[in-house]
Amino acid sequence: MKIDHLGIAVKSLAAAKGIYENLGLKVSPEETVSAEQVRLVMVPVGESRLELLEPTSENSAIAKFIAKRGEGLHHVSLCVPDLESAVERLKKDGVRLVSEEIKVGAGGHRYVFVHPSSAGGVLLELVEISH
Amino acid sequence: MKIDHLGIAVKSLAAAKGIYENLGLKVSPEETVSAEQVRLVMVPVGESRLELLEPTSENSAIAKFIAKRGEGLHHVSLCVPDLESAVERLKKDGVRLVSEEIKVGAGGHRYVFVHPSSAGGVLLELVEISH
Repeated sequence: MKIDHLGIAVKSLAAAKGIYENLGLKVSPEETVSAEQVRLVMVPVGESRLELLEPTSENSAIAKFIAKRGEGLHHVSLCVPDLESAVERLKKDGVRLVSEEIKVGAGGHRYVFVHPSSAGGVLLELVEISH
Repeated sequence: MKIDHLGIAVKSLAAAKGIYENLGLKVSPEETVSAEQVRLVMVPVGESRLELLEPTSENSAIAKFIAKRGEGLHHVSLCVPDLESAVERLKKDGVRLVSEEIKVGAGGHRYVFVHPSSAGGVLLELVEISH
């Protein structure tokens, strides 16, 4: 297992990415994900990535997060070897998931979100990616 | 470079660590850091660690964070190869640090904190650890 990425909600990609460039990290070109109403850049750090997310609409989940909590860490994504059996164990243990079903996201990766109430206040994404 | 650890502020270690044990991760024994007024456990994930922090006093920074923002992600710690030159570059670029000087923490590791206003709302720790 590893940390796949950290999702960070920001008002401006241009402003937020500067610190990482300054530290000598490479920042990906900007990419728009219409379905999520965000523009994002990825910053690879070791085996993980920082995902900077800027809302493109005030209706996006990221815009609502920023309005409520301000800019900052939005979610932690862990890469697990077998998502089905992980989800089965979590449900058996009474862990609350944001949605009961495994979803398929951009690039075909499969994921679920654990509700913050079951993970010490952290919105925890579990992904299974076949590299 | 890599993500050294994520600091997560929680009300109860016992409650928060369950999800990680359930996912098959190993959770360290509890440890108290009197200087920071916290009790903590470490959860290694790949090359990084999750650091669950429970306040032992209502005066601790973690207790104040929870009172203000609720449980959840508190800081991101990146391991950099040369902290002196990183700090020098950041200062030259007008990046705001929480304190101007490099500090020495438990176990002798050297660190600075970048202020959230210079890092997209993230409290960003930079550490230099010689492994």
